[in-house]
Amino acid sequence: MVSPIDPTSSAFLLAENRNMPMHVGGLQLFKKPEGAGRDYVRQMYEEMRDVEEMAPLFLKHPHRSVKTGGQLVWQPDLEFDIEHHVRHSALPKPGRVRELLDLCSRLHSTRLAWERPLWEAHLIEGLRDGRVAMYTKTHHALVDGISAMRLLASVLSTDPDKRGMPAPWGAQPNARRSRELDKAEASLAGVPISALRSAMGITADAAGMPGALVKTITKGLRNETSSLSLHAPRTMFNQSITGSRRFAAQDWPIERLRAIGKATGTTINDVVMAMCSGAIRQYLLELDALPDAPLVAMVPVGLNAKQSQVASSEGGNAVGAVMVQLATDLDDPARRLSAIHRSMKDGKEALSSMTPMQILAMSAIGQAPAILTPLLRMQGIVRPPYNLIISNVPGPRSTHYWNGAQLMGTYPLSIPINGMALNITCTSYDGNMAFGLTGCRRTVPHLQRLLTHLDTEVTALEKAAGI
Amino acid sequence: MVSPIDPTSSAFLLAENRNMPMHVGGLQLFKKPEGAGRDYVRQMYEEMRDVEEMAPLFLKHPHRSVKTGGQLVWQPDLEFDIEHHVRHSALPKPGRVRELLDLCSRLHSTRLAWERPLWEAHLIEGLRDGRVAMYTKTHHALVDGISAMRLLASVLSTDPDKRGMPAPWGAQPNARRSRELDKAEASLAGVPISALRSAMGITADAAGMPGALVKTITKGLRNETSSLSLHAPRTMFNQSITGSRRFAAQDWPIERLRAIGKATGTTINDVVMAMCSGAIRQYLLELDALPDAPLVAMVPVGLNAKQSQVASSEGGNAVGAVMVQLATDLDDPARRLSAIHRSMKDGKEALSSMTPMQILAMSAIGQAPAILTPLLRMQGIVRPPYNLIISNVPGPRSTHYWNGAQLMGTYPLSIPINGMALNITCTSYDGNMAFGLTGCRRTVPHLQRLLTHLDTEVTALEKAAGI
Repeated sequence: MVSPIDPTSSAFLLAENRNMPMHVGGLQLFKKPEGAGRDYVRQMYEEMRDVEEMAPLFLKHPHRSVKTGGQLVWQPDLEFDIEHHVRHSALPKPGRVRELLDLCSRLHSTRLAWERPLWEAHLIEGLRDGRVAMYTKTHHALVDGISAMRLLASVLSTDPDKRGMPAPWGAQPNARRSRELDKAEASLAGVPISALRSAMGITADAAGMPGALVKTITKGLRNETSSLSLHAPRTMFNQSITGSRRFAAQDWPIERLRAIGKATGTTINDVVMAMCSGAIRQYLLELDALPDAPLVAMVPVGLNAKQSQVASSEGGNAVGAVMVQLATDLDDPARRLSAIHRSMKDGKEALSSMTPMQILAMSAIGQAPAILTPLLRMQGIVRPPYNLIISNVPGPRSTHYWNGAQLMGTYPLSIPINGMALNITCTSYDGNMAFGLTGCRRTVPHLQRLLTHLDTEVTALEKAAGI
Repeated sequence: MVSPIDPTSSAFLLAENRNMPMHVGGLQLFKKPEGAGRDYVRQMYEEMRDVEEMAPLFLKHPHRSVKTGGQLVWQPDLEFDIEHHVRHSALPKPGRVRELLDLCSRLHSTRLAWERPLWEAHLIEGLRDGRVAMYTKTHHALVDGISAMRLLASVLSTDPDKRGMPAPWGAQPNARRSRELDKAEASLAGVPISALRSAMGITADAAGMPGALVKTITKGLRNETSSLSLHAPRTMFNQSITGSRRFAAQDWPIERLRAIGKATGTTINDVVMAMCSGAIRQYLLELDALPDAPLVAMVPVGLNAKQSQVASSEGGNAVGAVMVQLATDLDDPARRLSAIHRSMKDGKEALSSMTPMQILAMSAIGQAPAILTPLLRMQGIVRPPYNLIISNVPGPRSTHYWNGAQLMGTYPLSIPINGMALNITCTSYDGNMAFGLTGCRRTVPHLQRLLTHLDTEVTALEKAAGI
């Protein structure tokens, strides 16, 4: 059955090109259950491959032809070939995390072909510590990072003894799962999808791009009285990108970040921003590429009930976007953290003075920069008002399992775009804060160095906080 | 230094799209030398990665901009990143040939990006028999399958004790290597490149496509008096293709094929064709897709001195193309072999009556079907006059080594194109005949079954020949 593709998903499909694949990724690490045999990963792979019934989301592919009047439509893949989508891979020796990140970088660099449903999953063996990795890749026209994570969570359990759980792409009769799947299809990073889509629809419909949304964004960004209108310096991240990616990821105990926040009167999110700021500062310093003016990050934040009045009528959670000055001009970690805390507070206050439509627009720019950034350029805003996006997505707090395999960590891979070569997304899970850094391999050389700098920065912040 | 791209290479670059990547591949299997340590593959990888100096062929990438007047040019990659090109991979357990072919299929499916030099090499560990595999992929604008093999051969030695040999992409001062590299750049499957390029140049120059070459081909193909003008039935192979590939490969002792040839008065090449014919017949029968009329294969053949007069003045070897009726309508292996032998003989005789320009044109169609097949269609020849290409490329006869690692086998991966979803290329090496089957994963389902059928067919031919 052929079905129409809504304007937002179409826009994601059409914004894509070889240098800018529009898929989100996820990397999960599992611990084999007690008594797992030598063949465990192959069995796990076969279980994931031999799903009884597929969820419809994973069976449709985009199609456009004379018959569809040149319109993009979803079409079921009548020759669906699951072995093309679910793959069994392995790491070369010594099987460190480094080899895993290399493989994920490579897998994240290739585009999903429209001729098939827009997803892939790779079960990866060969980690020397015996853990099993899974890298998944799903087009942004189907899910965003958050709904992909929810989709995963929907097949996990807190019960280590539970079995018979389907793969994330398997159809599941029970109600909870269906609800989750609906959510996955219906939510775009917490912004109620219908609201966002109607906003985006203004721009992405047949007539072409600019419209009311862009006017709203432009106005918001140019509003001199609000702390939204920041000047973001030009940096090496704000260039055209190539199609190859580098991915780096690591996690730190939330307890460490909480202690820093407690000692300094800041939030965990402030500490996350300060870590990123310190790491980016050090990275740019080493490359002799640190601008004098501080970098600006676009940070999606949760909205309260009043702010989210548009959103709440849709029943979803609402997310706004705050422009945060990262204080990368300051050498002292404590001063940097305190400046970030203030900037974040100012931004949230500015948000509260915005109209719901403005909030939605700010949110849309965070969720769909690849689509909206070119629009800003057309409106005479040559550079986006921020240098990179840093998201912090809360995940499950307790330990989860998939058919007895304990989920040890989960790391997001996001979408670098032209003019925004680095993306940092953090997710919390089971007491840890995971940082996923996705960048253009060429524009952001030696991306993995940021991990070392992040680690150095936690220690520096602890020291500054007197811990 | 920017340099122009000749019309043939440009045509290969421009003919490419997501469904039809235009790179050739090679799979080599090596045996570790005596006393190789656990870390052997990593060391081999590092040796290949840490080349002292790169051959210029592997440093240039295509580029087109306003500055180049919209023309495609070769441009050196000033930020060349060898870790992007030379990769270390591994197979999941149980590490059978099946897992290796799966990985090669996947690697062969992705396009090379123009933003970087057009090649990749993957050193692969994890085969359960301890062998080491190498998959390489090079754009057809740089080399064809034969020159890629020559390039490999140029860094191998018959001396198992020789060390210090460079990777195929490493620059090497010694004269032999330079000569081989020149050849690789200068030769397109044995057709003297300058002749082919001038012929192709007629079509691929600024003004667009059809020209004298197409007229010549069309005339040759329509010549009713020659056995060149065969009717090829429509088959499942002659459809539009998708971008995913399946690769299968296996080898058989040449001694077995020679014995069949000797007992039946046919050549080894005839036996190779008969194996392909029997395997394809069985494959199509099982899918209930065998046409009544016999399939026709385009087979490149070597030319003698008289025939190759155009060629010889260029100092290269000459290759012509023969249309061979595969007798897939015949059930009996012996009758099929004999029919193929006659068809091949007729084709060669027809070739000898052709003018040098006609031979060159026939040869060009075999070497550049992706470019020339659409031209035929424009000339009113709706279907190409053959169903698939079967090449048989002679390789080294003796055992070769790379820094002590014995080359056990070498298998070619070729280019399926729209209307020609299956390609069979054979290469001989060290007493074995290797068959490399490359097909569109969707258009040619269960491609690997052809290997079983090839094996059944050898046995059937032996029985028919009374061996």
